[in-house]
Amino acid sequence: MNYPDFIHLKEVGPRDGLQNEKVFIDTEDKVKWINMLSDSGIGEIEYSSFVHPKWIPQLKDAREVGRKIKRNKNVFYSALVPNLKGLEHALEAGIDGASVFMSVSETHNKKNINKTVAETYPVLREVIREAKTAGKNVTGYVSTVFDCPYEGKVEPEQVLRVCDQLIADGVDAISLGDTIGTAVPSQVERLLERMLSHFNPEQLILHFHDTRGMAIANILTSLQYGITHFDSSVGGLGGCPYAKGAAGNVATNDVLYLLHGLGIKTGIKEEKMQQAALYIQDKLGKQLPSKTVASQASNY
Amino acid sequence: MNYPDFIHLKEVGPRDGLQNEKVFIDTEDKVKWINMLSDSGIGEIEYSSFVHPKWIPQLKDAREVGRKIKRNKNVFYSALVPNLKGLEHALEAGIDGASVFMSVSETHNKKNINKTVAETYPVLREVIREAKTAGKNVTGYVSTVFDCPYEGKVEPEQVLRVCDQLIADGVDAISLGDTIGTAVPSQVERLLERMLSHFNPEQLILHFHDTRGMAIANILTSLQYGITHFDSSVGGLGGCPYAKGAAGNVATNDVLYLLHGLGIKTGIKEEKMQQAALYIQDKLGKQLPSKTVASQASNY
Repeated sequence: MNYPDFIHLKEVGPRDGLQNEKVFIDTEDKVKWINMLSDSGIGEIEYSSFVHPKWIPQLKDAREVGRKIKRNKNVFYSALVPNLKGLEHALEAGIDGASVFMSVSETHNKKNINKTVAETYPVLREVIREAKTAGKNVTGYVSTVFDCPYEGKVEPEQVLRVCDQLIADGVDAISLGDTIGTAVPSQVERLLERMLSHFNPEQLILHFHDTRGMAIANILTSLQYGITHFDSSVGGLGGCPYAKGAAGNVATNDVLYLLHGLGIKTGIKEEKMQQAALYIQDKLGKQLPSKTVASQASNY
Repeated sequence: MNYPDFIHLKEVGPRDGLQNEKVFIDTEDKVKWINMLSDSGIGEIEYSSFVHPKWIPQLKDAREVGRKIKRNKNVFYSALVPNLKGLEHALEAGIDGASVFMSVSETHNKKNINKTVAETYPVLREVIREAKTAGKNVTGYVSTVFDCPYEGKVEPEQVLRVCDQLIADGVDAISLGDTIGTAVPSQVERLLERMLSHFNPEQLILHFHDTRGMAIANILTSLQYGITHFDSSVGGLGGCPYAKGAAGNVATNDVLYLLHGLGIKTGIKEEKMQQAALYIQDKLGKQLPSKTVASQASNY
């Protein structure tokens, strides 16, 4: 098999990983943790979300976190922004890039951001334009690209329509999200074949959750299609509080084990990621789902 | 990608899965559990091991289990046998097939069965001959085919030598074991390319452990090489008691999720495997590692 030589990982643990955790992590601990992640050699960290605090209490300190983290010149710091207000706060706190988000499926989009898909575009367009005006890179998170918890299977054609619109509206890259972690490799193949007829591999980021234990296999398939950008979360942090077994994002540590094992470079030091995983595991007081973290912790 | 149409799974939970568990499962419960597995549509179950009870106290009731389980005419019942004495007991208890075992690496073989690789062949040859004389199918488990915990990387050439000898000595198939669960897909590719220059895919069974979360990706790679036989353990039961994070065999439930998702038939009903996983999970009093089991248990 042919694999790319270098893979870019975006660490989403401080945002997607943490957002559903009930144990509040103190701001100082978040800052220390993000500084550990910055020190791992990773190229990008999504450090928080600038949505209204009532929606994600865990990330209510986004502005303070943004101001306090030590900026590493080799790291690109991004944050999630839902609207112009969020972007304003993010710009004040300091970001290199902003991420906007929407879902492909109407029901998930409606439940998540209370708008139809068509109503969402103008809101994002405004945020994208302002962020670009401020000289910032913009990524579009596109959720439910394989399966929707309400509508079932999602067709690649639907995904393509949303992505085409977001690219036309100015996003620099698209993060394709297996939001509920149910995709299998044949779904990845089918979507990527369609997407790669419109986009370069470099414009696409794959974002897997590991609810059914398929995330590493889905990444392997994506690599075979030449995808070079993935989102992942240290320790596999994350998941939905309403589904005990619904794991979070694929674990950065497991992805590194795969990639380095395949001889692919990432620039990231595994032992630093291990330390960062153990740090947040200790603060949360529960074992994180990453098998690599657990087995290394017991063996070494 | 091209995948096979039908995959044969061997359920090894009652042997490989259970052997290191400290909580003794009562014989009646084992029998009930194996009967549940027999009812799932799976084609083969390794129901116990006929090694001396002092080595594996959990499986000391192999003979009783063999006598008490309800034989389903569509299921092939096999057991692990270390020597002629074990085979004799297994034949009395009733088996359709016997599995012999050895390691590729000298140190692991020595620690596991107290013989050099060369000394092991004559012992297995005798067992294979007697089992074949009794009309039984014989599988050769070959351990440490990728990595040895003592010697590090194992070369495909070494694996091939051992397999060639076992095939010459009469085994019907070889189960290639990633004993410590550290292999990545490129190692699987490299080994299978070498093995498939000597053997048909049907002669090979792949046996993965999930210590680093790579097992499903390794199975995906094996499928791309035309492999049609895999060992797996319900719920992902198993693992080494000395390594907290060292998961057991790849979970049958996760493998089914992958295979059925890819449109591959197995003849196995997922809901029956879910019930069997929850049954043994309850008896052991701890959550099994399978993500599919955990997420289904919380969602349905």
